[in-house]
Amino acid sequence: MTEQFPMQKYVISILVANQFGVLTRVAALFARRGFNIDSLTVGETETPQLSRITVVAHGSAHDKEQMMLQLEKLEDVTEIREMAPHDSMSRELLLIKVGTDSTTRHEILDIVNVFRAKIIDYARDSICIETTGETSKIDAFIDLMRPYGIVKLCRTGIVALERG
Amino acid sequence: MTEQFPMQKYVISILVANQFGVLTRVAALFARRGFNIDSLTVGETETPQLSRITVVAHGSAHDKEQMMLQLEKLEDVTEIREMAPHDSMSRELLLIKVGTDSTTRHEILDIVNVFRAKIIDYARDSICIETTGETSKIDAFIDLMRPYGIVKLCRTGIVALERG
Repeated sequence: MTEQFPMQKYVISILVANQFGVLTRVAALFARRGFNIDSLTVGETETPQLSRITVVAHGSAHDKEQMMLQLEKLEDVTEIREMAPHDSMSRELLLIKVGTDSTTRHEILDIVNVFRAKIIDYARDSICIETTGETSKIDAFIDLMRPYGIVKLCRTGIVALERG
Repeated sequence: MTEQFPMQKYVISILVANQFGVLTRVAALFARRGFNIDSLTVGETETPQLSRITVVAHGSAHDKEQMMLQLEKLEDVTEIREMAPHDSMSRELLLIKVGTDSTTRHEILDIVNVFRAKIIDYARDSICIETTGETSKIDAFIDLMRPYGIVKLCRTGIVALERG
């Protein structure tokens, strides 16, 4: 009989050496453990030799523990942290292009103002908007834009910092 | 005699099916071709079955062409685009925690205002700041923060949209 584990969402921050193939090894580990990656970012850090990988994934708590142990064994990994929601701040960036016409443009601009989003391109039949926030805020913004016709959108995925 | 190709920076946007292991296969392809990845983001799109991978990498133009051909052959890849700087907008998100004291705090807040950045956490001896922009703006902001003592920083890497 197999035990049942509830699926949960995790944000994991991994500091890695800037080496060829390190991302491949990290991504392969997630795939092998059957963790579906919701988002992943790899970016530079305060130290030029190191990059930070931030992964949002879901799986059972048991699998997550196993995966963190496996990640620790990878040569190029120098630090692994789970970012707990109550003592960290997470943000993602959305770029979205929405169709507009003379009747919808004003409504869209009102929503942009309420969300403190930014217009980054303005054409006759579309506008491009940039906004940042927690995942729930980004989801809400996308839902509000959906009726106007989303031409294209890109989300960076989450980055997170510990508080205080 | 081997030909010399100048190294260049590229932003490549790849639309992929949400399948286990697709990120591993894409990352492995970059590693195999010797492309060093500067940043990579994987995030959701307007279609739940698809994710968008945005890669910033550098290599020769010849290698880049080869790599795009190889990417096209991957089963889960549905679209590949090179985002040209002159007809696309690229943005990344920075979260940065900087050490503060009573003498430096005001200076830091002035820079935050000039850059239209946001304070997202305020403690007695540090503040956390969120800002977005093109890579050059983010680099400039980090350089300005450096003398105050960067405790930690995370960058999402670039996402990009075509203009108009």
